[in-house]
Amino acid sequence: MSADPVAITRDLLRCPSVTPAEGGALAFLEKTLKAADFTVHRMTFSEPGTDDVENFYARIGTEAPNLVFAGHTDVVPPGDETAWRHAPFSGEIDKGELYGRGAVDMKGGIGCAVAAVLDHLAANGGKPKKGSISFLITGDEESIAVNGTPKLLTWVAEHGETFDHCILGEPSNQDELGDTIKIGRRGSLNGTLIVHGKQGHVAYPQRADNPVRGLVKLVDAIQNEPLDAGNANFQPSNLEFTSIDVGNKTVNLIPGEARARFNIRFNDCHTQESLRTLIEGRAAKASGGKINFSFKWEPSNANVFVTQPGPFTELVATAVADVTGRKPELSTTGGTSDARFITNYCPVVEFGLVGQTMHAVDERVPLADLRALTTIYRKIIDRYFA
Amino acid sequence: MSADPVAITRDLLRCPSVTPAEGGALAFLEKTLKAADFTVHRMTFSEPGTDDVENFYARIGTEAPNLVFAGHTDVVPPGDETAWRHAPFSGEIDKGELYGRGAVDMKGGIGCAVAAVLDHLAANGGKPKKGSISFLITGDEESIAVNGTPKLLTWVAEHGETFDHCILGEPSNQDELGDTIKIGRRGSLNGTLIVHGKQGHVAYPQRADNPVRGLVKLVDAIQNEPLDAGNANFQPSNLEFTSIDVGNKTVNLIPGEARARFNIRFNDCHTQESLRTLIEGRAAKASGGKINFSFKWEPSNANVFVTQPGPFTELVATAVADVTGRKPELSTTGGTSDARFITNYCPVVEFGLVGQTMHAVDERVPLADLRALTTIYRKIIDRYFA
Repeated sequence: MSADPVAITRDLLRCPSVTPAEGGALAFLEKTLKAADFTVHRMTFSEPGTDDVENFYARIGTEAPNLVFAGHTDVVPPGDETAWRHAPFSGEIDKGELYGRGAVDMKGGIGCAVAAVLDHLAANGGKPKKGSISFLITGDEESIAVNGTPKLLTWVAEHGETFDHCILGEPSNQDELGDTIKIGRRGSLNGTLIVHGKQGHVAYPQRADNPVRGLVKLVDAIQNEPLDAGNANFQPSNLEFTSIDVGNKTVNLIPGEARARFNIRFNDCHTQESLRTLIEGRAAKASGGKINFSFKWEPSNANVFVTQPGPFTELVATAVADVTGRKPELSTTGGTSDARFITNYCPVVEFGLVGQTMHAVDERVPLADLRALTTIYRKIIDRYFA
Repeated sequence: MSADPVAITRDLLRCPSVTPAEGGALAFLEKTLKAADFTVHRMTFSEPGTDDVENFYARIGTEAPNLVFAGHTDVVPPGDETAWRHAPFSGEIDKGELYGRGAVDMKGGIGCAVAAVLDHLAANGGKPKKGSISFLITGDEESIAVNGTPKLLTWVAEHGETFDHCILGEPSNQDELGDTIKIGRRGSLNGTLIVHGKQGHVAYPQRADNPVRGLVKLVDAIQNEPLDAGNANFQPSNLEFTSIDVGNKTVNLIPGEARARFNIRFNDCHTQESLRTLIEGRAAKASGGKINFSFKWEPSNANVFVTQPGPFTELVATAVADVTGRKPELSTTGGTSDARFITNYCPVVEFGLVGQTMHAVDERVPLADLRALTTIYRKIIDRYFA
């Protein structure tokens, strides 16, 4: 009898694991995987000023290669629960769909991976056909992630564990199961442009220096030219000014300072350093030495990465195509994910459910998608160890 | 024996007439002018949502021409009274200077006008040599002015009074008594430019429309060209963007709207209407039909005006030069004043004390300035009726 991804996902959905609460989700995984002979490690990470977060690592087998399924059991808050058709932590099934916060992001992905792994083990006498299979699960992906995947990876590495390939079960598909595998993500960098002027009365502008005048010139110059043209794996890098805030409520006052905040999503044509040089250079050129400005760059751990297309991505894409009949796009679009940390340890791709209802009221997943994703994961495991 | 401008000013300074309080200042003027045979009217104006304000009109004589001295007895608050060398409503004299809130802005100006008028009357058998002399005094110049000069002028006109020329005793001089007569003021107009975009996630800019992009282009285009070149009476009109406020605190969000607020100080090359047309035209041209924007214009009662140089300004300037030895500049610079309302009734010039300590801690006036200004006003009156 094969493992049931619907039942496993349903049990996970009934754990109210809103970040940073564990909610019983990791305890459920521990029980399930221990029963299948996994060695399970649960560890709590702390940091002053942040919530303690529980994390999880489980492995079966001692040999290489070690194939890792990564993910998170924490979920974003459900918001107004009365707006949901079915209570967000009840795991109700209605017209072929399983409802609940985390259904696609990403308890469903974990449920499918667990079911596929259990099936593979059952078919091979309770062990991986070769090598090892691991689960790397955090309880803080949806919040600040300080006590989540980065510390979990450090812990695992310090305990002598190595990974060979990783599948992160985030909802990678846009419209239909099988349309997208994410093989990388753009980096993200935030900065603030500050123009320093001199405050004064609007009736005497010659005694003041209006920083708004310089700010709009620099903002325009910074955003006027593309950052690059993109490449085979990435769309062009992009900069957006997300806010300009002078905060001067006095109508007859020229302000002393003006600030513009921006975010850059960048591909592997750039590093954080090259971007800072490029942006500051554009501002310097546009100022012509006549505008007094400075930049404040926020620290960022969201670097660009890509798992170059090759045998591993091909293996995943073929399994997806075999089950869904779709040729998945190898994409690097969208926001950041924990894959940006995992990439420092081994090649990682993201493939999971369809993201459309994630973070929304009535988050839900078709039962057919859960079964299809389980079949895809099973094919990946079988072929990986073949 | 001639009237003493120091004593009169001192009595006024001891009245705590912070807007909208009358503080005894108008009562003191009533008593003083009634004793010299003036007909005195005191009226309180009201408006829902605003403080009641006392106003004052006094006249001696019934014939034309009617020479008017205008001003206000209300003062701005003293702020931290302990920071003052002498208590702000005590009227202390120290090293040849009279201290107090309103010393130059503008109880001192009123004190000098009253003294000069009393001297003129005494020298002419208790009556003006010809025509009439009036005092037009408000109790709300320093605040919103709703129940001040505009209503006072309407009341006076409705009671059949007419003015021929007016001297407003605001502190017109910049550094030394006699350096500046104000013969007009620029107008003031406030507006807000709003660019309408579409909110979205920074990782998917193609699904959003960042209004900051359009806003900086329009702001730059609007402020890049001068509004005019100025003329004989006025410096060039000027526009300053005083604030840009997007108010987006979310770093990965493209905002849906961006606003920029601006103030225009304009000369008589323009009207409010022509400015609106000019600014909106510049924005439309710069948008090239591709930026979705709108303007919000605030109502303004601060229109430009000028009393064209001629016999009246010449009379005032000559009196100033005779007493101070300085040839005063006929200026239209600086902020707005109640003269913008009076100009609708008769030619008006502003000449009073030196403004340097106005609204500041330790506001004060040299006794010598009070005596010199009284002499100037006396010469103006004598020559006006000669």
